[in-house]
Amino acid sequence: MELQEYKSVFLKYLSTEVIENKSFHQPNNLYDPIHYILQLGGKRLRPVLTLMSCEIFSGSYRSALNAALAIEMFHNFTLMHDDIMDKASLRRGKTTVHKKWNTNTGILSGDALMILAYQFFENYEGDTFKKIVSLFNKTAIEVCEGQQLDVDFETRTDVLLFEYKKMIGYKTAVLVAASLKMGAIIGKAKDTEADLIYNFGFNLGMAFQLQDDYLDTFGGVDFGKRIGGDILENKKTFLVIKLLEMASKEDQLEIERLFALQGDSSVKIEKVTSYFKKYKIDNFIKEEIKDYTQKALTDCKRLEILEKDKDALVLFANNLMKRKL
Amino acid sequence: MELQEYKSVFLKYLSTEVIENKSFHQPNNLYDPIHYILQLGGKRLRPVLTLMSCEIFSGSYRSALNAALAIEMFHNFTLMHDDIMDKASLRRGKTTVHKKWNTNTGILSGDALMILAYQFFENYEGDTFKKIVSLFNKTAIEVCEGQQLDVDFETRTDVLLFEYKKMIGYKTAVLVAASLKMGAIIGKAKDTEADLIYNFGFNLGMAFQLQDDYLDTFGGVDFGKRIGGDILENKKTFLVIKLLEMASKEDQLEIERLFALQGDSSVKIEKVTSYFKKYKIDNFIKEEIKDYTQKALTDCKRLEILEKDKDALVLFANNLMKRKL
Repeated sequence: MELQEYKSVFLKYLSTEVIENKSFHQPNNLYDPIHYILQLGGKRLRPVLTLMSCEIFSGSYRSALNAALAIEMFHNFTLMHDDIMDKASLRRGKTTVHKKWNTNTGILSGDALMILAYQFFENYEGDTFKKIVSLFNKTAIEVCEGQQLDVDFETRTDVLLFEYKKMIGYKTAVLVAASLKMGAIIGKAKDTEADLIYNFGFNLGMAFQLQDDYLDTFGGVDFGKRIGGDILENKKTFLVIKLLEMASKEDQLEIERLFALQGDSSVKIEKVTSYFKKYKIDNFIKEEIKDYTQKALTDCKRLEILEKDKDALVLFANNLMKRKL
Repeated sequence: MELQEYKSVFLKYLSTEVIENKSFHQPNNLYDPIHYILQLGGKRLRPVLTLMSCEIFSGSYRSALNAALAIEMFHNFTLMHDDIMDKASLRRGKTTVHKKWNTNTGILSGDALMILAYQFFENYEGDTFKKIVSLFNKTAIEVCEGQQLDVDFETRTDVLLFEYKKMIGYKTAVLVAASLKMGAIIGKAKDTEADLIYNFGFNLGMAFQLQDDYLDTFGGVDFGKRIGGDILENKKTFLVIKLLEMASKEDQLEIERLFALQGDSSVKIEKVTSYFKKYKIDNFIKEEIKDYTQKALTDCKRLEILEKDKDALVLFANNLMKRKL
């Protein structure tokens, strides 16, 4: 099946099982924000991966629909709470839940959304149920830890590269990985295969996230990103951490002075970018991205699945990295 | 075993499995608030009920320790988030998490605490695991719905008695009930027995919560409550809802005028209390409390357990209602 087909199958299921489900309507003030965020759109990559993975191992995506829903609900729970923490006003171009309603609603509806995610797993039995709930627990805790590390890093000036990688791994890559593994578990894949597709997802998620850092400075307008946004926000991305690690004492001081500036923005972006280039940080991060992508492809190659399914995973990975999804 | 023994066994387990567990230390800013709230004290009624119930059905409380921990963790997660929503500064005489740290920490540590609760259920296998996670999901959603109803009622003037009862049932009684049922499930009780002890807990929880409303106005200082606190806060308790339902049109207007007042507090308490007495609302609520207590005792009597265990449950119920726990 094509990605677009998985997506539309998923959206139809979301509609019948959640949006139109009478159990999830009262009290309105609890459930309206849940319906709202679940219908804000988005690429639905995680649930699509769950369906795709299940189909690869079992021949059908159908049994993974409830898990796909749970994954998407959990993801949206994290968005609802993260938006409060970040004081974000917009999400996918629409007003965030806590702005449209209020902070208390954002907290409580988010809580309910997370519990509903768990409830959708009740559609599975026995060993499968235990395995997917355990995977989900582990992943959910890691996502919380990743979010905390991200918050902690905002006020730290001594973040090391390995810490940064742990943060993006936990905050982003583990959920991509778990989405694939969950489909594999439901599709009755062998444990080794389920672990392999987890690793594929994790490495792909890491490559994607590091590429995000790269594109912010070196992406060009094609990628729809405001160039230098991270620099203006003084975000400690991979680029900045690596730069501070590589720079001479003198340059370090100048870079830190630049980051303390609030002034002329285009000059700041230009100067920081020239330091990235001076120390070849762009090449360094490109190597890292290549490494993770390569690891993902190797994981994929080792999977004991049909060649056409390997091709589909590789196509997915390539399109993701080309920002074509 | 005595209640105090269950409590100390529970506290010891909490200490070794959570507080001293290295897995729950990093990142500090995520786990410190969790350790803090779990060590604020409290009666630990819910986990004690889980242990007690398991011992009644299986002869040993030990296998219920992880579920007891999960229940207590979930309860503390609700406290952490409720305190943010209520802007509460104190919890058990100590600074609340969001005041000691900040709101974002309260949100994120609360989220992690809920997920950790789910993780402790992984210590159970097969059918037991499925049953307790399902019971937990249902209960957790109800607690969220109860909290939302409570919030909604603050700005409504037309709350009906049955709605109020649903709110306190969801917000409080279902978790007491689920604590007992969880112990029963782990103790391999028959389904009918597990349901019966759930009902016992639910009815006891309802009686307790309604008594809370009663004592606020009619309790006297013995119960350690500030008399008339609910009246001053204009809380729509059972007493107020019933009063507005019973009062003449004329009195209704006067009562609503009183509630709109911010002025002399002791006069307000006195006048509202005299209306409660005029319409015998105190007798009415006492009847309700008696009904629920009676239902709980009937549930207890019907349980197929040892007489000494029935006596223990009745003693617990009586001490709870006498506010001696």
